[in-house]
Amino acid sequence: MSELRWNPMLEEWVITATHRQDRTFFPPPDYDPLAPTQPGGFPTEIPASTYEIVVFENKFPSLRANVGEASLSPTELTPVAPAQGVCEVVCYTPLLNAELASLPVAKVEQLIAVWADRFADLSLRDYVKYIYIFENKGREIGVTLPHPHGQIYAYPFIPHIAERELSAANRHFERTGRDLLGDILQNELEDGRRVVLENAHFVAVVPSFARYPYEVHILPRALRPAITDFDAEERRALAEILKGVMEKYNNLWNRSMPYIMAMHQRPSDGANYDYYRFHIEFYPPYRTPDKLKYLAGSEAGAGAFINDTHAEVTAQTLRETSPHRI
Amino acid sequence: MSELRWNPMLEEWVITATHRQDRTFFPPPDYDPLAPTQPGGFPTEIPASTYEIVVFENKFPSLRANVGEASLSPTELTPVAPAQGVCEVVCYTPLLNAELASLPVAKVEQLIAVWADRFADLSLRDYVKYIYIFENKGREIGVTLPHPHGQIYAYPFIPHIAERELSAANRHFERTGRDLLGDILQNELEDGRRVVLENAHFVAVVPSFARYPYEVHILPRALRPAITDFDAEERRALAEILKGVMEKYNNLWNRSMPYIMAMHQRPSDGANYDYYRFHIEFYPPYRTPDKLKYLAGSEAGAGAFINDTHAEVTAQTLRETSPHRI
Repeated sequence: MSELRWNPMLEEWVITATHRQDRTFFPPPDYDPLAPTQPGGFPTEIPASTYEIVVFENKFPSLRANVGEASLSPTELTPVAPAQGVCEVVCYTPLLNAELASLPVAKVEQLIAVWADRFADLSLRDYVKYIYIFENKGREIGVTLPHPHGQIYAYPFIPHIAERELSAANRHFERTGRDLLGDILQNELEDGRRVVLENAHFVAVVPSFARYPYEVHILPRALRPAITDFDAEERRALAEILKGVMEKYNNLWNRSMPYIMAMHQRPSDGANYDYYRFHIEFYPPYRTPDKLKYLAGSEAGAGAFINDTHAEVTAQTLRETSPHRI
Repeated sequence: MSELRWNPMLEEWVITATHRQDRTFFPPPDYDPLAPTQPGGFPTEIPASTYEIVVFENKFPSLRANVGEASLSPTELTPVAPAQGVCEVVCYTPLLNAELASLPVAKVEQLIAVWADRFADLSLRDYVKYIYIFENKGREIGVTLPHPHGQIYAYPFIPHIAERELSAANRHFERTGRDLLGDILQNELEDGRRVVLENAHFVAVVPSFARYPYEVHILPRALRPAITDFDAEERRALAEILKGVMEKYNNLWNRSMPYIMAMHQRPSDGANYDYYRFHIEFYPPYRTPDKLKYLAGSEAGAGAFINDTHAEVTAQTLRETSPHRI
């Protein structure tokens, strides 16, 4: 039901997952499948009467551990491979009307420990090459379940954007002996205009080359390739800056801000990636309070992003927005 | 007001165009800026009382011929360059309530002549490296003016997706002496299941590796790198298959189908691209009649596309849909 098909024009895998057409689509609040199962109530995905954070396999996965036969025969030009991998759902809270930004810092810290645990655990599977932790938030992003949750995809290949970042970082390291993202961070700190928030261990910036208005990257001050590399103090600092960025987003237009949160880290294929720095990218879909930024002809068809804002301006706006709930 | 900023992580230019925030957004039908100017009426973009096809410079361009100074100083890691180029609007018809699919074949043929003319003309400018002809159709794609029109972007660089296709095609040619897209077409013709429509000079397929449900590629049977390379008979055949594909789209769910139409051809930087074949790609945004395909976490953050359909099935559906207006 799931397979990888090779695109020889763009040299990347496309995942087909036809069973996902029938996935749950905005169930009524009383039938929230990510809520705890109430005594006498309908059985949700979580057979427990409450939980703190829960991780389980996606019921409509794009990738799965046990793969069947491919529907298509490969050709030399267009290989076909099993879509072997793992898709997990991470429920942040049993409450339907909460969100990551509204959870206490200690809870976000706990979530970071869960992410690190899942990264370590999924890394042990030999078919897993890249573990991608992310969140789609909001109807505008295409979310089909409103319950606050994130996802983890364990791909059997290094996905295209990760591959490009790794390749650029590797070449930069060969050339300079330094890690690319560290140099980008240094640049941003020297300029200062695009810094949104910082603490002892992390910096949040709208990078000069942001593709989306209000795009924010959170970078660690030290070279850490994966989420498993942070000590307790760093985890606490990451929880604080994550919550700070998300509260700024919500305070910006005084409503819950949709976004894609994308965690970029080293692959888990066993190679050495000591030149690559962990970071988290946020892409909110709005360019103004009431206008979406679409990925249309230039972005989708040519790969040239047009950003209707300057990072210096959006960063200043976000910097001047309170990081505390208002 | 427009500049190119280098993204050193993804090694691509991002265009910033802050003046575009204020572009015209769904004007009332009586103030259609792409209509001909009526005697005594308000002055539209087109100072003529009617027209067949008209091309003019976008009033809110992402790229322009006369560029001012950049707002940002470059660093070694993050170069900044003038966004010098051209953005043109191509109005297909003076009628607001028409669309490309509803125009007669002879009119589409005329449009192809206009595209070829603009390609040749824009190629003469030394700062233009790549000419991209496209159409964003439908509100779902982010269109802000409902009047039927396409666009032409003349970029001062080879945009990322074109660069990847060219690089893959170049390596395939070095390896085999054949052009990659010709081999892909051969594969598709031998298999046959994904062919949607064909005529003496062109074939329309849903490629096995489609990223979008109902994605269609139109390929010429002969190796032609640019739209300027077609003779009169080929132009006629291209007009017929273009209209055929668009009518199938409209007939599929019996309503006007939104899409991105992306024309991929050789760059205009003077180098030799005889190994690269012109083609047109269509990406409709729907995965079912009432559900959009979103580019969310996996696509936007990792670069891994998930297609909830198999090309064999969507191609069959489109093949069995009439190419004539129903």
